[in-house]
Amino acid sequence: MIDLDRIRADTPAASRLAYLHNAGAALMPAPVVAAVKGHIDLESEIGGYAAADRESDRLDAVYGSVARLLNAAPDEIALVENATVAWQMAFYSLPFRQGDRILTAEAEYAANYVAFLQVAKRTGAIIDVVPSDASGELDLHALERMIDRRVKLIAITWVPTNGGLVNPAEAIGRIVRAHGIPYLLDACQAVGQMAVDVEAIGCDMLSATGRKFLRGPRGTGFLYVRRALLQQLEPPMIDHFAAPWVSRDEYRLRDDARRFETWENNYAARLGLGAAVDYALDIGMDPIEQRCRLLADRLRGGLASVRGLAIRDLGRAPGAIVSFTMNGYEADAIVGSAAAAGITIGASDPASTRIDAELRSLPPLVRASPHYYNTEAEVDRLIGHLVALASR
Amino acid sequence: MIDLDRIRADTPAASRLAYLHNAGAALMPAPVVAAVKGHIDLESEIGGYAAADRESDRLDAVYGSVARLLNAAPDEIALVENATVAWQMAFYSLPFRQGDRILTAEAEYAANYVAFLQVAKRTGAIIDVVPSDASGELDLHALERMIDRRVKLIAITWVPTNGGLVNPAEAIGRIVRAHGIPYLLDACQAVGQMAVDVEAIGCDMLSATGRKFLRGPRGTGFLYVRRALLQQLEPPMIDHFAAPWVSRDEYRLRDDARRFETWENNYAARLGLGAAVDYALDIGMDPIEQRCRLLADRLRGGLASVRGLAIRDLGRAPGAIVSFTMNGYEADAIVGSAAAAGITIGASDPASTRIDAELRSLPPLVRASPHYYNTEAEVDRLIGHLVALASR
Repeated sequence: MIDLDRIRADTPAASRLAYLHNAGAALMPAPVVAAVKGHIDLESEIGGYAAADRESDRLDAVYGSVARLLNAAPDEIALVENATVAWQMAFYSLPFRQGDRILTAEAEYAANYVAFLQVAKRTGAIIDVVPSDASGELDLHALERMIDRRVKLIAITWVPTNGGLVNPAEAIGRIVRAHGIPYLLDACQAVGQMAVDVEAIGCDMLSATGRKFLRGPRGTGFLYVRRALLQQLEPPMIDHFAAPWVSRDEYRLRDDARRFETWENNYAARLGLGAAVDYALDIGMDPIEQRCRLLADRLRGGLASVRGLAIRDLGRAPGAIVSFTMNGYEADAIVGSAAAAGITIGASDPASTRIDAELRSLPPLVRASPHYYNTEAEVDRLIGHLVALASR
Repeated sequence: MIDLDRIRADTPAASRLAYLHNAGAALMPAPVVAAVKGHIDLESEIGGYAAADRESDRLDAVYGSVARLLNAAPDEIALVENATVAWQMAFYSLPFRQGDRILTAEAEYAANYVAFLQVAKRTGAIIDVVPSDASGELDLHALERMIDRRVKLIAITWVPTNGGLVNPAEAIGRIVRAHGIPYLLDACQAVGQMAVDVEAIGCDMLSATGRKFLRGPRGTGFLYVRRALLQQLEPPMIDHFAAPWVSRDEYRLRDDARRFETWENNYAARLGLGAAVDYALDIGMDPIEQRCRLLADRLRGGLASVRGLAIRDLGRAPGAIVSFTMNGYEADAIVGSAAAAGITIGASDPASTRIDAELRSLPPLVRASPHYYNTEAEVDRLIGHLVALASR
């Protein structure tokens, strides 16, 4: 069971705000804030290098924490600036040739898609979008039919930014593994919201951020790369940490996933990330996932009866991102009106998920994303606010 | 004139430590610490996105501050994770073909050199090291002789990590500009220590860090790219911030240097970087440079009379990094012994500057790097400590 009182005491802003913007950046719990600020203080007391030395055990432990979160090994984890850098370091390491195919999904995130386009332009690789099934999830039968020997990567977003869809990451893993196709999973909106097990999923690479459902600091992210693949991948860019300069004309890539890192880092933010992961693991990912679903379902249930409101979520079992539009109101106007009432939500622009948005003719969507630390009353406040808005 | 009392009051640790490790990571002044921690607090009060929105003017102003520091325009500046990422985004954007030549200097930093090696392996480009003159500076005549039509880049470190050498960046600029050769200057150890003027230098790209002589937070760096070159460079990796996804099969690179950034950032660290730059500009780079030289020269003067100590600095007018070895003591032992006496210094490994280290048969060096906030008495403490060590 989740001890909501203790958790909300660790989240002081929760007493003032109905904070339902966890798909943007969640509120950090007190141990995360303390870890970041404490390290900045230490750096100002003894200097940045001595501070990193003194905290080296805790800094090393962040790899173990992230590994536990994903059911991976610490040497399969790289800690980087953000989820995009994590994803890029994996994607741009892969070799593509003319005619090679990259499979992706309809609601793929813009950051990833422009990278596909850049690599397609450079190499002649082809981007093929696997269609969705009637529920809006990636169509597994279509995926199977699309696989051939030219498919060199499947790269999909597990939980797209623009709604509750949860793509069938595990089922995809079973299919592509049978064909030996590398599988890059963007788990930016999944990690921290639901249990993640890279062994169960069968993905070879997974990228995620600290700031969203993990409740970590901004400017943190991480990459998982399966050990067997790791040593075949040369990062697109290297420094002497990723690849020590061992003789005048030779560098040697590190054996572990830290070959995707650079030497210099924001150690305060890293310790904050570690604290965030430990905080989530301490509560337990299963209770977190259950409570996220409970609150999101409650929100969807309430919204269903708001006049002129259309829920835009896809999938058989949508997660903690609830997207909708309302007749007569732009998304930004709803976000602003909620903010004025102490309710923090966000909006999702069609350009973030252009293909899905075009297929469904989506305008900007309102995006409300509860988390385990929210209360039922906060969800109801948002519903009430929208009911009032609808009846104006 | 520098108001040392006020500055030292802004640097509380200076009352306890003789902190002479500014080439590693300097002590942050109070306004930098306050900027970082204040923003973390704001994020925990209203959420990470609202906090960035509320501070958007101050966040924008960081570009202006960095631009003023370098005599550049704000749209020629990218703010990134560290100096290595800054340098990489510039270097890996450049197109190289078989037989193209990259010119560099003997004391080039390891991070950069392994990147040269990677690109040489990928493309068939050739790395040519310009020899040093008798003073240890890059030999300008040799540079002129080495230039031909196959030279596609000169990339040098202005102030190498392993000693006081200040390479003749401006004179190099005059030569390579006359030949239209792109010029990438690693200013990691120069920025914050001395006045930097990209117009006077004539460099096309310049990378630097926040944490060293600028006294900013760890995990901050920036890249300058001259506007005329900028629009010819496609970054090696892109996201939808660098290159908005404008239609299904098309992205459009940003017009400004922020095409080298990613969407997500550590805004607290950025505000800290901005505060650090403003703090330096407020004091003035000329007085800072003068005081750095004064203290470094005082240190070199004192060290010259320590028995068995050899100063290892090169160049006609060495800067604020003072490197040396002492008979009978490993560098690490000296660093440890000084630390026990409340004196913070560092060491430089031969692998950081392998070519220079091999040419000069350098062991690990002790590296002491005073800054304007240090006192003459602190410098003398280090000298006294080494005198005592030498007479044991």
